[in-house]
Amino acid sequence: MMNFTILKLDQGTAFIMKAVYFDGDINYDDSYPDPKPGESLVRVSLAGICGTDLEILDGYMEYSGILGHEFVGVVERSENPSLVGKRVVGEINVGCETCESCKSGMSRHCPSRTVLGILKRDGAFAEFLSLPEKNLHVIPDSITDKQAVFVEPLAAAFEIRAQVSLQPQWNVAVVGDGRLAQLVLQVLRLWCPNITCFGKHQSKLESLGKEIKTKIGITKNDEQSFDLAVEATGSSSGFTDAIKLTKPRGILVLKSTIASRASPDLTLAVVNEITLVGSRCGLFKPAIDALASRTVRVDSMMDAVFPLREFAKAVNRAKMPDTLKVFLKP
Amino acid sequence: MMNFTILKLDQGTAFIMKAVYFDGDINYDDSYPDPKPGESLVRVSLAGICGTDLEILDGYMEYSGILGHEFVGVVERSENPSLVGKRVVGEINVGCETCESCKSGMSRHCPSRTVLGILKRDGAFAEFLSLPEKNLHVIPDSITDKQAVFVEPLAAAFEIRAQVSLQPQWNVAVVGDGRLAQLVLQVLRLWCPNITCFGKHQSKLESLGKEIKTKIGITKNDEQSFDLAVEATGSSSGFTDAIKLTKPRGILVLKSTIASRASPDLTLAVVNEITLVGSRCGLFKPAIDALASRTVRVDSMMDAVFPLREFAKAVNRAKMPDTLKVFLKP
Repeated sequence: MMNFTILKLDQGTAFIMKAVYFDGDINYDDSYPDPKPGESLVRVSLAGICGTDLEILDGYMEYSGILGHEFVGVVERSENPSLVGKRVVGEINVGCETCESCKSGMSRHCPSRTVLGILKRDGAFAEFLSLPEKNLHVIPDSITDKQAVFVEPLAAAFEIRAQVSLQPQWNVAVVGDGRLAQLVLQVLRLWCPNITCFGKHQSKLESLGKEIKTKIGITKNDEQSFDLAVEATGSSSGFTDAIKLTKPRGILVLKSTIASRASPDLTLAVVNEITLVGSRCGLFKPAIDALASRTVRVDSMMDAVFPLREFAKAVNRAKMPDTLKVFLKP
Repeated sequence: MMNFTILKLDQGTAFIMKAVYFDGDINYDDSYPDPKPGESLVRVSLAGICGTDLEILDGYMEYSGILGHEFVGVVERSENPSLVGKRVVGEINVGCETCESCKSGMSRHCPSRTVLGILKRDGAFAEFLSLPEKNLHVIPDSITDKQAVFVEPLAAAFEIRAQVSLQPQWNVAVVGDGRLAQLVLQVLRLWCPNITCFGKHQSKLESLGKEIKTKIGITKNDEQSFDLAVEATGSSSGFTDAIKLTKPRGILVLKSTIASRASPDLTLAVVNEITLVGSRCGLFKPAIDALASRTVRVDSMMDAVFPLREFAKAVNRAKMPDTLKVFLKP
């Protein structure tokens, strides 16, 4: 068994790097995870940088630990021998398995859960990570490593479908044109063909293809004209725009926590009797199926791959307005 | 036909008072309404002061006009002769009758609606008011004038039932112990017997009776333990308390605009995937039926009756922490 030792070293120090550790500052860490009973050790092949990672770097969740929650890897060690050597992705929430939420299949709402790279559980920007066997999903060969990194955020997009009974005649708006917004658009258009992306970046809007209407800026005619709006900007102005677009008695899905912390005014929600649906992580199966069947395509969203030791560079790249998915290779 | 003349006079000037007019200051007004085609003239018997009136006096809605929207009265003049002399209450939203909302029976969400005493339509703190015949509901003799004044806010409480499919096994919290909260409690307990009021005022909590559990302050055990929470405080801290009480994947109904303007943090809504339901006015029929059948009782909520010319006194009374419904008699 490998030793579990943590050596925090300052950025730039020469050493064999194994993980990106965050405790207010970015450090590199040469620890190995020590899987608990029921957990499997996964060698990370590729990881992705997500808006939540950027928020955590800004202090969100007050997280300390190894960052990262989007990954694909190969099972190195497991109590289940048939898993060893398999290419997997992993659901990021780990529940206690004894509380009411866990028993009802909602371990992602377990009050004492850990969350990979987000809450009390070391994450995926590392050579190795550890997750319970039940969290792992074997990825079919038809899905590339880069595509597989999208399973986690794509599952979060599919979560909207699990929460809202989407109607094909609906007029749907997605506010935002970034990583998460693009996945939400691809998922929602499967049920609601009449869909518009309200974005800010011409190049991102162009990458969406012809099937999705795109707009920069909200006109008077757009206001209160959407049955369903999704806030997926990751910016503080997102909420105000999204609620403006929503019809009276319509639905507004909140996908980004950053917009939700921006002290939004809910008067319109009350006066127009809007239903706001907070939406977070989703189950992985529909996302894996959609990638395998090419129902959802993510290749146009792929940006550069950085080695783990160039994490700071990768973050700067991910923060650039025109960038979609940036990868890290351990 | 009576003349439509407005004479705004300063408070305290001796004259024959007919209405309470607000344009940033409180004035008295001796105008008569001039009913439009389809509208009936109603002589107001009794009106009620509501939290929204107090908000308007603080600048909400930037309303100018005759205040008041809770009333019972007698039809003085109508195109429908069978209505004349009848005791009525009136739905407060008046739609254009041509837009999509109006055609689908949702005139209370008509974008060009007027609202009695709230938006571009003179209200009920007056000897006379005017409303479309279709807004009026004849009140059975078994309902007293004082009880009838509760129809409008009680309909707003019943609106929750129209928006949310209430389940009898739910654990329900109502945050607030004031006018609206008490009506919400009475309505929700018809479907959800396991209901708790989180209030601040001992005397108001005692008036609720034994069937409703009451608490002052939220303990750790209360947090995230309610399937449904209703924010009905009319105070800025209400939202923070209510969302704290709501279970992951639970429902939070927003009934008061003042709490909704208090820049709430929606992070918990996203992380715990809470559904927030904005809720405003309801249809009158269920409220009238509930009062007529004594399913909902409002007598314990009645406070003093003031003549219209003592409006300032009445407002001060309505603002006192232990006061429930204050009436105005033209």
